[in-house]
Amino acid sequence: MKKRLGPSERLFPMPCPLIVSGTLQEANLFAAAWVNVVSSTPPTVALGIRKTRHTFEYIQKTGDFSVNVAPTRLATQVDYCGLATGRNEDKWAGSGLHMQDADSISSPLVAECPYNLECVVKERVEVGDYMVVLAEIVESHADESILSEDGKTVDIEALDPLVYIAGSRQYRGLGPKVADAFKVGKSLREERVEAVPEMPATEAVPVAEDAAAELPDTAVSSEPVTDPTGVEAPAQTAGNDESLFE
Amino acid sequence: MKKRLGPSERLFPMPCPLIVSGTLQEANLFAAAWVNVVSSTPPTVALGIRKTRHTFEYIQKTGDFSVNVAPTRLATQVDYCGLATGRNEDKWAGSGLHMQDADSISSPLVAECPYNLECVVKERVEVGDYMVVLAEIVESHADESILSEDGKTVDIEALDPLVYIAGSRQYRGLGPKVADAFKVGKSLREERVEAVPEMPATEAVPVAEDAAAELPDTAVSSEPVTDPTGVEAPAQTAGNDESLFE
Repeated sequence: MKKRLGPSERLFPMPCPLIVSGTLQEANLFAAAWVNVVSSTPPTVALGIRKTRHTFEYIQKTGDFSVNVAPTRLATQVDYCGLATGRNEDKWAGSGLHMQDADSISSPLVAECPYNLECVVKERVEVGDYMVVLAEIVESHADESILSEDGKTVDIEALDPLVYIAGSRQYRGLGPKVADAFKVGKSLREERVEAVPEMPATEAVPVAEDAAAELPDTAVSSEPVTDPTGVEAPAQTAGNDESLFE
Repeated sequence: MKKRLGPSERLFPMPCPLIVSGTLQEANLFAAAWVNVVSSTPPTVALGIRKTRHTFEYIQKTGDFSVNVAPTRLATQVDYCGLATGRNEDKWAGSGLHMQDADSISSPLVAECPYNLECVVKERVEVGDYMVVLAEIVESHADESILSEDGKTVDIEALDPLVYIAGSRQYRGLGPKVADAFKVGKSLREERVEAVPEMPATEAVPVAEDAAAELPDTAVSSEPVTDPTGVEAPAQTAGNDESLFE
């Protein structure tokens, strides 16, 4: 039995990276749960930020920011960056975190965070007291210690990213792997194809293109897909040197 | 030692809800990792969706969609909804999932998903091949089996939400609680206050307002904050009957 809870700003789970904006001389950092990727052409994040925030002033001024994924061992530091404000505290000193120069933006990275995105603001959309900032991801960095053997993919267990749970206000880590994406669902697909052999062949869409149209965006856009037909489909972006579907 | 990976559309972790758009007579569903909350005034989600997607046609037509959080036990069904397309397969029949009537939108909910958001499209922003859809969350639903004793907060272990990991393309569950948000960082704050007693009092910002300005948005906007000063500050929204900071 479902219960109506009214309008709610809770989705599960949320990431909890540190956002940094400013320069090596003066930059603010805060913890943000309202951020995610929304496009791969070009790679773009959407960040919802209250317009009264100290960091928002920096983002308006510099036009860029970094997104720094914190491992669970930094939960205390991340939480401190949420509780304190850069208006009257030096959060770098207070947290013990350090700046690291970025490659393509003025805003520094958080040295202690092993995965970092450099983002350049492209569009702003006002939504009530918030500004939704759409920013292009122009560079990404990963510490060698969190890279898989291929040197291109993040070893998620080594990264051990902090996860934010709205409502009950908890930080959590990730649990064990449940299943491989783009694989585990194939069993249902095969069952379905067997169950409806009468489906008109003329309505069939080439499976590679079809799969690309409906897979979760992240993986579709620039990563190899083991397609059941073996048909090669063009990749949507050329990011990360993964230019062809398998 | 950090390694540059180039522009990347990967952030860790990502949610993996099912998005449904259409009517009870004809609705499409797909798995989306590129979605999150971005505002609480009003509660708003940002969803990045490829313009060629079948579901996008429905969203354009109906102007609304539901966001349905799947538990890990539905990983196979979610993955199937990513692999198949509504253009030539009935994904409801293929997945075994069922529609449930929504309260305030035409698009149905996924009955088997114990947490659902009803969203009405407010703005669209083109970003390359993608459309970023900003949609107001007009209603939310939770199955009684996933509610905490207060009846207002989701018991995250009961919900057991599916998590998507980009790059390595895995579905995961959540791990154990690492720390309480808005609590664990206070230790650093107290240390800092002791360390800089010479901070000019005239620059001090009232702590309640200050904390509200810098906490992760989710929790700030409508949930009680145990503020170290005990000062009451007005909540930013009146959602979920949590109208005052403690």
